[in-house]
Amino acid sequence: MPELRQNIISRDWVIIATERAKRPEDFVKKGKEPIILPQYSDKCPFCPGKEERTPPETFRVGDAKNWSVRVVYNKFAAVSNEGVRTRSLNGIYRSMNGVGVHQVIIEHPNHNAVTALLKNEEVEDIIKTYKECFLFCRKDKRVESVIIFKNHGASAGTSLEHPHSQLVALPMVPPQVRERNRHAINYFDDTGRCIFCHTLEDELKAKERIVFETEHFVSFMPYAALTPFHCWIFPRRHTSSFVAITDAEIKDLAKNLKITLAKLYYGLDNPDFNYSIKSVPVDERETDYSHWYISIIPRVSQTAGFELGSGMYINVALPEKSAEFLRNIPVSK
Amino acid sequence: MPELRQNIISRDWVIIATERAKRPEDFVKKGKEPIILPQYSDKCPFCPGKEERTPPETFRVGDAKNWSVRVVYNKFAAVSNEGVRTRSLNGIYRSMNGVGVHQVIIEHPNHNAVTALLKNEEVEDIIKTYKECFLFCRKDKRVESVIIFKNHGASAGTSLEHPHSQLVALPMVPPQVRERNRHAINYFDDTGRCIFCHTLEDELKAKERIVFETEHFVSFMPYAALTPFHCWIFPRRHTSSFVAITDAEIKDLAKNLKITLAKLYYGLDNPDFNYSIKSVPVDERETDYSHWYISIIPRVSQTAGFELGSGMYINVALPEKSAEFLRNIPVSK
Repeated sequence: MPELRQNIISRDWVIIATERAKRPEDFVKKGKEPIILPQYSDKCPFCPGKEERTPPETFRVGDAKNWSVRVVYNKFAAVSNEGVRTRSLNGIYRSMNGVGVHQVIIEHPNHNAVTALLKNEEVEDIIKTYKECFLFCRKDKRVESVIIFKNHGASAGTSLEHPHSQLVALPMVPPQVRERNRHAINYFDDTGRCIFCHTLEDELKAKERIVFETEHFVSFMPYAALTPFHCWIFPRRHTSSFVAITDAEIKDLAKNLKITLAKLYYGLDNPDFNYSIKSVPVDERETDYSHWYISIIPRVSQTAGFELGSGMYINVALPEKSAEFLRNIPVSK
Repeated sequence: MPELRQNIISRDWVIIATERAKRPEDFVKKGKEPIILPQYSDKCPFCPGKEERTPPETFRVGDAKNWSVRVVYNKFAAVSNEGVRTRSLNGIYRSMNGVGVHQVIIEHPNHNAVTALLKNEEVEDIIKTYKECFLFCRKDKRVESVIIFKNHGASAGTSLEHPHSQLVALPMVPPQVRERNRHAINYFDDTGRCIFCHTLEDELKAKERIVFETEHFVSFMPYAALTPFHCWIFPRRHTSSFVAITDAEIKDLAKNLKITLAKLYYGLDNPDFNYSIKSVPVDERETDYSHWYISIIPRVSQTAGFELGSGMYINVALPEKSAEFLRNIPVSK
């Protein structure tokens, strides 16, 4: 009998399709040639020595020529760095100027670097940079929300091989963020608890969906995982905004994120994936009900007409089995 | 300057990324070998002569051995035809039995049939079948909503080549459907109008996003199209449920759907696509505010971390340009 599960944070319902269920091993990439990248590519604008070919730099870890992380404006920006925030309300047509900030975080000098295989300190530099960029964009009065995300691999939508993340600072709050907030407020008003803290507490008790624990963070699979190997990384400490992360927490998150990605890398043979940081809108202060986290979606399945027609997902992997599979992948810390 | 547009029906915001904008021609499939399928495949369980190899048939147009459309239960059902509807509410864990109906609509006896190239009467038979299946599932007391959809091509999530659609009848109402309804009710309460009728009226005046008009239906691109070549087909008559469609409207929809798909087929070289019928939950009667429609999403772009992180879309095609491109694709009626 298939099972429908509700993600109480997003209120999404997911069909856990037991009749079509696959084993974790079935999601390992097969028959595809491994992608072997060079450490340096002459054509890549993000490789060191071509700093003048990128748009202006806004942040850097290291020296101008000997950097470890570099942030530049996106050459093909989805939102424009210039211009004012204006709205146009014309009957059914509602629009606004696409202003904001679109940055590229070049994660490493090496063209072939992979987060899962980096040193902990290198991942730490990336997360520190995320925080700096978020703080930078928050100062921009036009900005209402900041989305930080990474696309790894072609089926995750990346167009450049060189390892990078992106930040898009928007002049509005996405409806998904508002909805998540609304559910969290309702839950707090009804129960007096943070829905995220409650979830983490119960998942730590249940154990079966935990992937990896560190001092300050827990990576686990949502009970109603949208897709096979969908992972969340929650901070144990109740904090609403990503930028409240402390230095000790950055160090610990680097370890947790790296190990979680390494388990996916070794377990599923370097799958394409996306991750994103889910944080509160920039104007919101720390509240009792909202709690930032990271969501990782490996691209091992295909959404189809059912998902587009209903907004629901069919997941052909049991989160408990997928989590057990990842727990058992040995990764050196 | 990029533009953010709001889809007032779903309340989604879309970034129309003018700085990265592509021409309509850029979405034509390139460098891929065309897929040439045989008219009959010995291995295909949906090809005629192997009727006993499929799960039980629930509906058919034509004779048992000489059919034009056939409906069978899905062998790998996402929801089970048997069992009762039960809920389990256990703290943060909420689930229900995955009961309902999952059917496959085999659209044509020919293994290589393509909707865009069928005769009008053949498409009419498919739509008639959709209506019959919807009515069949509505009688099932466990069913709350019915999703009818089609996956065409591998990147649209199809696993079987033989042309088919699917119907999933769910024991609950997807949050997306509830949300759409909620917005429509608010709009009606605020303005006294159906938001869909209002949209259609203004789009017919604006003309620039219209793809194709027939007597009872209009296909057009949403002002805030989520993805390149995203199309809607709206009935001109205000009706809330798909099953209110009349015989004359079925005949006309067949023509409109076929021509719209043919314009995509010839214009973009047979792109992979999904379509789905967006209708009200089965228990809802005709209301002044809800209005069924069809949504078509060609799979010509890739969602990435931004979409997963924000729930918003970046569309690199201007709906006005895409609609003009399709209007100019000649298709014999």
